[in-house]
Amino acid sequence: MARPQQFDKQEVLHNAMRVFWRKGFVSTSLADLLAATNLSKSSLYSSFGGKRELFLAAFDAYRENRRQDMYQILSEGPARQAIESMFHTILEGAKASEFSNGCMSINQAIEMAPHDDDVCAKVKEDFQTMEKALAKTIERGQADGSIRGHKSAYELARLLVVAFPGLQVMVRARCDTNRLNEALRLLLSLLD
Amino acid sequence: MARPQQFDKQEVLHNAMRVFWRKGFVSTSLADLLAATNLSKSSLYSSFGGKRELFLAAFDAYRENRRQDMYQILSEGPARQAIESMFHTILEGAKASEFSNGCMSINQAIEMAPHDDDVCAKVKEDFQTMEKALAKTIERGQADGSIRGHKSAYELARLLVVAFPGLQVMVRARCDTNRLNEALRLLLSLLD
Repeated sequence: MARPQQFDKQEVLHNAMRVFWRKGFVSTSLADLLAATNLSKSSLYSSFGGKRELFLAAFDAYRENRRQDMYQILSEGPARQAIESMFHTILEGAKASEFSNGCMSINQAIEMAPHDDDVCAKVKEDFQTMEKALAKTIERGQADGSIRGHKSAYELARLLVVAFPGLQVMVRARCDTNRLNEALRLLLSLLD
Repeated sequence: MARPQQFDKQEVLHNAMRVFWRKGFVSTSLADLLAATNLSKSSLYSSFGGKRELFLAAFDAYRENRRQDMYQILSEGPARQAIESMFHTILEGAKASEFSNGCMSINQAIEMAPHDDDVCAKVKEDFQTMEKALAKTIERGQADGSIRGHKSAYELARLLVVAFPGLQVMVRARCDTNRLNEALRLLLSLLD
């Protein structure tokens, strides 16, 4: 009997996530996954079930990481500045010497969500999580004085959530960062 | 010698466009294209060159249609109302009984633009065309009195252009239309 392959599940998920993030679901082949994870085909199937199941698990790992990053950024410093930092990280992606993969959730809103209910539910949850986190931060800013506008925190948050995929898409299409920065400045002026 | 297949090039492009729009580039197979266009493989290759060339031609046909639709909508009635109509058509897509394919340019910003320079150039051009058309409409509104805000037309247009893919992505992920409508209302209040 063959010995079961030993591996670190978190590391496998991370490596699978990187390839799914870069290539999307459809364009990622089984060969890509075996190369990225260093697993045998039988180990991959017995441990994860198959390509789609591995994708969903890798996507969840990605989402959890990004959620923690977002909470971290939004908790640092005055609220207005924290929100600016969160949006500036999107534009920073455009400056990377190697092309940025964008945000996997946004990519999946386009690729899989329209015809895959599981992916759709995850992407919608991500937008809702972001709306809630931004609304709380805006409330914090209205309390700490860094956000002087008195518009409803939830309304403002909803608009910022719309801008998030908008910027991600435009960065991915390599649009001019200076123009995106101007748009962002005008958007954030709604907080003043 | 076999007789060359007779066909209407515009109709073929339209049919190919529909399948590429719905499935994207990678997921569209040669078999899908032959079924959609009713062409033989040899006709398709001799007339269009191959899958990628057919895709680029079909994408251009789509872009030209959408550009004309946009000019039409933006020319009708007071400028403020015309801009509202343009953005409302995105949300209307969410109500269609069959799932909307979203905007092919936005889908391609995610799918192909990051690694295909030709697609990237087309998508960027679409954003620029939209920015210019919106800026002209805002200037018209500032003249006809329907837009009372005095912010720079180009700055406002840039922000609206960011919201366009944002809304498209969120509609495609089947997000709640009422919330998107609220976000849109707040965004357009910048025109007042």
